[in-house]
Amino acid sequence: MKTIRADILAIGSELLHGGRVDSNSLFIADMLAQCGIRVVKKIALGDELRDMQVALRASSRQADVVIVTGGLGSTVDDRTREAVATTFRRPLKVRPKAMQILKRQVEERGRVVTSLLARQAIMPTGAIVLDNTVGTAPGFFIHEGRAHVFVIPGVPREAREMMKFQVQPILKRKLKTTAVLWTHSFNTIGLPETEIQELISPFFQPSSAIALSLLASTKGVKVTLSGWCSKLSHSRTPKSSKGFAEGDYLVGKVREALEPCLFSEGEDTMEIVVGQLLSSKKLMLGLAESCTGGLIAHRLTEVPGSSNYLDRGVVTYSNKAKQELLGVPPALLRKYGAVSSQAAEAMAKGIRGKSRVDLGVSVTGIAGPGGGSAKKPVGLVYMAIDGPQGTQSQRCQFWGDRTEIKFRSSQAALNMIRRYALHI
Amino acid sequence: MKTIRADILAIGSELLHGGRVDSNSLFIADMLAQCGIRVVKKIALGDELRDMQVALRASSRQADVVIVTGGLGSTVDDRTREAVATTFRRPLKVRPKAMQILKRQVEERGRVVTSLLARQAIMPTGAIVLDNTVGTAPGFFIHEGRAHVFVIPGVPREAREMMKFQVQPILKRKLKTTAVLWTHSFNTIGLPETEIQELISPFFQPSSAIALSLLASTKGVKVTLSGWCSKLSHSRTPKSSKGFAEGDYLVGKVREALEPCLFSEGEDTMEIVVGQLLSSKKLMLGLAESCTGGLIAHRLTEVPGSSNYLDRGVVTYSNKAKQELLGVPPALLRKYGAVSSQAAEAMAKGIRGKSRVDLGVSVTGIAGPGGGSAKKPVGLVYMAIDGPQGTQSQRCQFWGDRTEIKFRSSQAALNMIRRYALHI
Repeated sequence: MKTIRADILAIGSELLHGGRVDSNSLFIADMLAQCGIRVVKKIALGDELRDMQVALRASSRQADVVIVTGGLGSTVDDRTREAVATTFRRPLKVRPKAMQILKRQVEERGRVVTSLLARQAIMPTGAIVLDNTVGTAPGFFIHEGRAHVFVIPGVPREAREMMKFQVQPILKRKLKTTAVLWTHSFNTIGLPETEIQELISPFFQPSSAIALSLLASTKGVKVTLSGWCSKLSHSRTPKSSKGFAEGDYLVGKVREALEPCLFSEGEDTMEIVVGQLLSSKKLMLGLAESCTGGLIAHRLTEVPGSSNYLDRGVVTYSNKAKQELLGVPPALLRKYGAVSSQAAEAMAKGIRGKSRVDLGVSVTGIAGPGGGSAKKPVGLVYMAIDGPQGTQSQRCQFWGDRTEIKFRSSQAALNMIRRYALHI
Repeated sequence: MKTIRADILAIGSELLHGGRVDSNSLFIADMLAQCGIRVVKKIALGDELRDMQVALRASSRQADVVIVTGGLGSTVDDRTREAVATTFRRPLKVRPKAMQILKRQVEERGRVVTSLLARQAIMPTGAIVLDNTVGTAPGFFIHEGRAHVFVIPGVPREAREMMKFQVQPILKRKLKTTAVLWTHSFNTIGLPETEIQELISPFFQPSSAIALSLLASTKGVKVTLSGWCSKLSHSRTPKSSKGFAEGDYLVGKVREALEPCLFSEGEDTMEIVVGQLLSSKKLMLGLAESCTGGLIAHRLTEVPGSSNYLDRGVVTYSNKAKQELLGVPPALLRKYGAVSSQAAEAMAKGIRGKSRVDLGVSVTGIAGPGGGSAKKPVGLVYMAIDGPQGTQSQRCQFWGDRTEIKFRSSQAALNMIRRYALHI
């Protein structure tokens, strides 16, 4: 079973010394996998011609498919066209088809093609022009030795469109793939990576066709099973040497073992899961955030349609705001402090009562780096939920920097909502 | 002037087909630049031994310094140790010094060294062990041909600590660098990339020692000047062939040209700049967010000390919440709609009045993908600010998906606060 191998080359100095990560390669890899193509490496390079030439030459020899993204703009630091032309000895010239695309796109924006913009219509000899329907830079495709080399813009929206409408159709037509990547992921919260590994590794034989990968982040631990399986097989999951569908078997086993800490499978984030649950149970939510500073509301509202279950949120950073917006008694704050289970419960009851929603949720804690003490260290967070089943609160001790503590707190609070709503 | 060249290899299948970007290489590149080392490429690889071997061999021949990050854990998919050992023919064995580090770190967490965890103390022959003070996996360093190869964990906090306290000191001792990377960035909002290019490119000669890069994102356009300059030079910026400090000259010219759209220089984000301004002017802020859903509050509270200027925020997703928390008259909402300059101004005045703060700020709009109409399309956003200089509002038409529209709205609203506060 031959797998088709791809390299992704992301071009731009900002990817090396400019504080920018290459995020295009995420969806490019997904789209290649859909065509049965496995990404072997992703390379980020600067704008230096020589470095681009070395990488282009190596990848065009090692990979069947090379996707180059970035450096197609009209500014001085955009040198991808030049690098491809010189590496493969294909002189650059203006291509009428590319100029047509450029003109159409520029004029649509009510502007004219300046000499600076016109650089985008220059392409290496023999290149097939790829249309760009959302930006000004056309892409191109060349066949070089064994490799299919696609050059697409670096702007994510343009790269995505071009992958979908230009690159994928060509790949599907040109390459006869026999294998497709099968993956299945489980998203968990509450157990460390090593404990999960100990729980599930007994299911995996050394000879297994399925690879296991565990990934810990502030979201929890993501468990991914993956394997390349034959397109000709009737089963949609990889088979072991014994011929049975090992993928289906392992998914069942792992799901059962992870059940207590599993919040979703596949790409569904915690905010999507919580949104679906609140939506299906017709529950309205009110949020009272202190240390998370609006992050829970922000995450919930990243999901389209969230107005169906989020009535409001308040970010009560000051004690005055906690009193005025949530009716938390000053005496309670004086006696127990703003970071306490008592304050968390009063905040949850306060937002539920004042906004007359089904569920009131609160988070209060010390995100750091300052504000901690021996008794209440940085990372100490209380959260509470008030609803038809009564009030529940929990105490968490998180670690990490301010951003991590805020995120872990938001994730735990959303999980608290999920667990509470499941039983309504 | 010889520059020392580095490759960064990030290991982990999740970086190829798992929806994860390699963010470690950002700070690794910065820390290498501090040692006068230029990153030439960043490579993300899966857990396949063969792919790791090919990349390790190529990088150890092409680069002076190779930093390998990830794949040092104790789970089955952690194969970096094995890859280094087989590539460079250095058999693996248990290293007492590594075992000491492992024991100390594991016992500190109140746990014991299981056989699974003990894998982390195995290292290639001849490796120098690197201490890990924040996690369990020790790193290591080998000298292979011309290359210095450092292998460090993939967990960001651990990688950062090991770079700072182990890798940087060794590099500074072993490599005599003659050049350091000089960079200067300008962060702008409000002008497109090509207009900025036309404004500032006349200052750059083709023979310039300084490279210019422009980077557009939802934050605005970042303009970066960079060049390698001699450590022996008295000037702290690169010199042109004529011998004058070209860097200083260009920074002055670019700053002047970009002034109307410049909000910061260097690494300061918009939320840091706004925070510093509010803090220095002793202004308290109240936020009323609709379509940004808490994102502005979240961003402001990412900055330590934000409780000094953020009193509270409300996320008023429902009309009921806009009426109750902000006192927006139902008749106004009926007449103009929730997405209107009238609603935005009433919300800003409402939050300022109810919380008795210096500045009240509001955002209301259509983040999409649903909810748009011909008259009020997706991306239409109104924002307003109310303060001692009166009320101001603005209408914006953003593009992109829901996440992008939310972010661009938050960025524009923070910039509105900045401009208003500058004149108080």
